Amino acid sequence: MSSHHIVRDDQEPALIIANGAACNPELLGQLLEWSPLVVVLDSAIERVIELDIKVDVLLGDFDRGFDPEIYKTSQYPIEIVHAPDQDKTDLEKAFDYLIARKIPAVNVVWATGRRADHTITNLTNIVRYRNLLKIVILDDHSKIFLLPNKFEKWYTAKTPISLIPIGVVNGINSTNLNYPLQNDTLTMGYRTGSSNSVAQDGLVTITHNNGDLLLMECID
Amino acid sequence: MSSHHIVRDDQEPALIIANGAACNPELLGQLLEWSPLVVVLDSAIERVIELDIKVDVLLGDFDRGFDPEIYKTSQYPIEIVHAPDQDKTDLEKAFDYLIARKIPAVNVVWATGRRADHTITNLTNIVRYRNLLKIVILDDHSKIFLLPNKFEKWYTAKTPISLIPIGVVNGINSTNLNYPLQNDTLTMGYRTGSSNSVAQDGLVTITHNNGDLLLMECID
Repeated sequence: MSSHHIVRDDQEPALIIANGAACNPELLGQLLEWSPLVVVLDSAIERVIELDIKVDVLLGDFDRGFDPEIYKTSQYPIEIVHAPDQDKTDLEKAFDYLIARKIPAVNVVWATGRRADHTITNLTNIVRYRNLLKIVILDDHSKIFLLPNKFEKWYTAKTPISLIPIGVVNGINSTNLNYPLQNDTLTMGYRTGSSNSVAQDGLVTITHNNGDLLLMECID
Repeated sequence: MSSHHIVRDDQEPALIIANGAACNPELLGQLLEWSPLVVVLDSAIERVIELDIKVDVLLGDFDRGFDPEIYKTSQYPIEIVHAPDQDKTDLEKAFDYLIARKIPAVNVVWATGRRADHTITNLTNIVRYRNLLKIVILDDHSKIFLLPNKFEKWYTAKTPISLIPIGVVNGINSTNLNYPLQNDTLTMGYRTGSSNSVAQDGLVTITHNNGDLLLMECID
């Protein structure tokens, strides 16, 4: 069993394991080590228990003849949350669940890969949780989060930084990027800030006036 | 070697093999069989030639110490297109190349998976080629294309259909979908039409007034 239960500090991010492509077990292990709460979405639990991970919450609409009750014994204690709302994805329902529990931050894995509709929906729908929940989506190649209007972080030179506007983002300025932005507008589908990078070791600053801007740290 | 050279009808779609995750060899084989022209992006050729595929065009910025000249012999005849424009992705440059050659349609594989910034950029940037090139992106779980203002196609009942707005799309109407749209607005990040499906065997009609709307046919 994973040792994630040793740490029980709700200030650490929760972990959601969604239903897309599995990530590298090493990435999953690092995240589990610090996570006070592990939430698994729907039938992903079949793949998760094979990895010998203790699950705290199983959440989904369970609408495909999948029976969550069988995990009540093998994963005891486990909370089973039946969330039938057809207007939301299971991932959105899991975000709502964490917000209701006043958990401030979450890492999400297995949210990308496989179906392109799920991938693009999972990546872009995080913008509606601004100010409600600090969300980071991770996979083997990517770390993705929504930028606040003023963002500052220390990076090493040449770190790849992609700025992806969800819709239209106005008034973007940056410092310490190789392709600097100066009061720029980015528009999804037409002008994005993919494949930028850090100029030199030090603080990167990215500000924007309005709109939803994702930062993606990606490696090949 | 693949037999794709038997068919040489430029009315069939060209095939671009991009630099993301490889698809199932069976899907690739089906597409190669009908494709009059195979374009490979940059260092993806290293993975493509291992599959014993004859490449017609190798295109990229070749900026990572990668030497395309070595393929001039092994893939003879091959056109090598050095495309250094840093404001466009290699996939966009390949679309421009096909448009310049007056090729009307293209299938794209290996454009998803791996880096999330590349995936989301590849999927969403196809909207700017409306009226210039008919683009279909395929992977093992997904078939993705931009909808014209009026779209009609015959589907079998329960086929999953996801409607993904790139930005804001207004005045959407549908027939024969399980969650019908009636003069609806979809907004990326806030209200999308993911995970809809076909009501019954027959024609599905989807119309919209303005904006860029992707249709994704996806399976688990």
